[in-house]
Amino acid sequence: MSEQYRFVLPEKEMPTAWYNVQVDLPEQLGPPLDPAGNPLSPEALLAIFPPDIVEQEMSRERYIDIPGPVLDILRTYRPSPLSRARMFEKALGLPDDVQIYYKYEGINASGSHKANTAIPQIYYNKKAGISKLTTETGAGQWGSALSMAGSQMNMDIDVFMVAISYDQKPYRRIFMESFGAKVHRSPTTLTEVGRRVLAEDPDSLGSLGIAISEAVEIAAANPDINYSLGSVLNHVCIHQSIIGEEAILQMEMAGVEPDVVIACCGGGSNLAGIGFPYYRRRLDGKTNTRIVAVEPKACPTLTAGDYRYDFGDEAGLTPQMQMYTLGHDFIPPGIHAGGLRYHGDSPLVSALVRAGEIEAMSVYQNDCFDAAMIFARAEAHLPAPESSHAIAGAVAEAKAAAEAGESRVILFNLSGHGFLDLASYDRYNKGDLVDYDFASGTVLGEHTE
Amino acid sequence: MSEQYRFVLPEKEMPTAWYNVQVDLPEQLGPPLDPAGNPLSPEALLAIFPPDIVEQEMSRERYIDIPGPVLDILRTYRPSPLSRARMFEKALGLPDDVQIYYKYEGINASGSHKANTAIPQIYYNKKAGISKLTTETGAGQWGSALSMAGSQMNMDIDVFMVAISYDQKPYRRIFMESFGAKVHRSPTTLTEVGRRVLAEDPDSLGSLGIAISEAVEIAAANPDINYSLGSVLNHVCIHQSIIGEEAILQMEMAGVEPDVVIACCGGGSNLAGIGFPYYRRRLDGKTNTRIVAVEPKACPTLTAGDYRYDFGDEAGLTPQMQMYTLGHDFIPPGIHAGGLRYHGDSPLVSALVRAGEIEAMSVYQNDCFDAAMIFARAEAHLPAPESSHAIAGAVAEAKAAAEAGESRVILFNLSGHGFLDLASYDRYNKGDLVDYDFASGTVLGEHTE
Repeated sequence: MSEQYRFVLPEKEMPTAWYNVQVDLPEQLGPPLDPAGNPLSPEALLAIFPPDIVEQEMSRERYIDIPGPVLDILRTYRPSPLSRARMFEKALGLPDDVQIYYKYEGINASGSHKANTAIPQIYYNKKAGISKLTTETGAGQWGSALSMAGSQMNMDIDVFMVAISYDQKPYRRIFMESFGAKVHRSPTTLTEVGRRVLAEDPDSLGSLGIAISEAVEIAAANPDINYSLGSVLNHVCIHQSIIGEEAILQMEMAGVEPDVVIACCGGGSNLAGIGFPYYRRRLDGKTNTRIVAVEPKACPTLTAGDYRYDFGDEAGLTPQMQMYTLGHDFIPPGIHAGGLRYHGDSPLVSALVRAGEIEAMSVYQNDCFDAAMIFARAEAHLPAPESSHAIAGAVAEAKAAAEAGESRVILFNLSGHGFLDLASYDRYNKGDLVDYDFASGTVLGEHTE
Repeated sequence: MSEQYRFVLPEKEMPTAWYNVQVDLPEQLGPPLDPAGNPLSPEALLAIFPPDIVEQEMSRERYIDIPGPVLDILRTYRPSPLSRARMFEKALGLPDDVQIYYKYEGINASGSHKANTAIPQIYYNKKAGISKLTTETGAGQWGSALSMAGSQMNMDIDVFMVAISYDQKPYRRIFMESFGAKVHRSPTTLTEVGRRVLAEDPDSLGSLGIAISEAVEIAAANPDINYSLGSVLNHVCIHQSIIGEEAILQMEMAGVEPDVVIACCGGGSNLAGIGFPYYRRRLDGKTNTRIVAVEPKACPTLTAGDYRYDFGDEAGLTPQMQMYTLGHDFIPPGIHAGGLRYHGDSPLVSALVRAGEIEAMSVYQNDCFDAAMIFARAEAHLPAPESSHAIAGAVAEAKAAAEAGESRVILFNLSGHGFLDLASYDRYNKGDLVDYDFASGTVLGEHTE
């Protein structure tokens, strides 16, 4: 028997509490602000979120018990695997003391970590007597996760899918429909916002901002309908912490402590998921693990944005939050990691980057696809374009350690698979992927290092 | 903590030997025959297969050690999970003593059990100094598996993809290319067969028979190129036995013995994989497990075919084998489970069905999609259309047991996922799937029970 590849956590050791990093921040978060610039009241949130979610959004509890029915559904696909990427290490030609491990969140049917928050969000909404959730989706991972969880827990799901994605990504639409969701090509005639947009431009291809507005409008107007968001907010980061809690136990099984934990970062929830429990572990004096967020150079919120109050959506309809932002009217170029095309970032992640507790780096998408292809061919996993950013970060860390002659244990989060992103791989394979550099404002037609 | 869902076999307990059912058949198989009707010599096989594979094809060893380098790659995704389908049981409204378990073979990047044989086939070919393998693919699962394994083990792979599939399934083509394979739209001008076909019909949409002929022609003409087949043959069934060997250990962990083991059956290798080790267990007096093959009513080889010698391909270029067959010139209707559209069947599976050791049943594809959707929404796995046949079989067994008031433990093989089959789900969702009945020769426009 050769060396071990996978560190499988027994089902009975799956964590039963989430970690809430809010209590451990160096400085408390500024509150969300209403349109008049005053701290938002919980009542305003209760119009579209259930009481348990609103409570978690502001919770001062360090640990929050995961409800039993949520555990039951999480156990259909969790604990998720954590593997040492021995074949990938070999393909990169790394020395023995530079090791790469990865946590894989793509094994549930929706194909990404988003299921981890879709399930509790539906649970809390059902508990509050809600019969339907609205949400928006662009790239489709979040809409897929909420649809899947909705089908498991008998909650009606209405997804407002940005028109251009609806047209270009039929597989995502079919996936959501197969799990029973109603998918609307946004803008629709169902809402005031949608009708206004269509009156101005009957051929509108939509935007995430419009889709959010449509979903929120319906939720706010109907007492038995709520709205659901798949990233950014505090309760989402709380739900994702199960990733890091499991990883800590699995790395203990592997007998090594990670020197660095890496995740891609768009809204920030998968980084929060694997990173925040390691931040606590560092506070507790048990580790020196660094935490690294990897974002696209085309949309480098943490590395090139301002830290200030801004709206969560393009149209400026949501409350303002304190975060890194490129400006809510910034439209990121059309990179293939659609889930990382977000002008802002999780307030919790932003606060920890601001405090120097989390590092951030930005990468070109062609370098991400390069790294993803080496990884895919070695480890037999096809990564989502979003997740490929974490792989590029891991490669950079590994090469830096090898060049410096240092040992390093690297852990990254493989947040989802790329089976529904093959059109992007086709363009990469053909050499047709352009790149974008926010800093210089240029479009790069060629592959860059 | 509630009841257990998943039975995870530790990596160090992964079986290290394959089971070879050839030594345990009630009657020995008739040998393959050459075009003149004489038993085929091993030399004829050595023109396109490596020595270890030819030896396994006729082996009289009950167990065959899995080579260390093959174990190393299998361990990147094995042991595969075995789960109790508690949410599915609930969705079906089953009594407590009717239990459903499933083994999931879709976690490797290629998405199906086919990787289990792709890896050793490449290993044995590399050992024999072969630098390139040719193969054919229709639905694409086999081509994907061989491409993935080729990229992991540095073997060049040339896939002859049936032209109509090449045009209709671009994602499968991109997937294979992403893993480094060269994908040819067959018929090509690279072979004599291809050129002849194109001369007659420049717009030919190809066929599996033509693609096989092209792949074999190239392998036979080049000493450093071999041919690789993903199902039907004895060595493939041997390689797949790891599924059942693992399942036996995992069902022991679950503390129950299956009353029935179910798999879909096209060429027969995934049924062989989960079923043959249970057949041995029955011979050894350790169980009474029944084994059930589920095939499409549109192509019911085992339930409506003849048991006789026939060619393995449509064109009649391969050796003849003793098996159930609908006739090598039978063209199955275009059902969505492309992997089950095969006129013949594995000689080993055929012999055991003939001897009454394995049962067979046939199902309509609409009933399969019905079962798959209930399963998907409950268990959060989107099954391949092929695998949905096993689910339909499990539902039939479960309902029969519940109606009879009997307890029953059912285990089925979920051989692959359906992420690249969403176009089929779209047609099902829209009610556009027609059905076919081989027995009556009719096309059924409507959903049938």
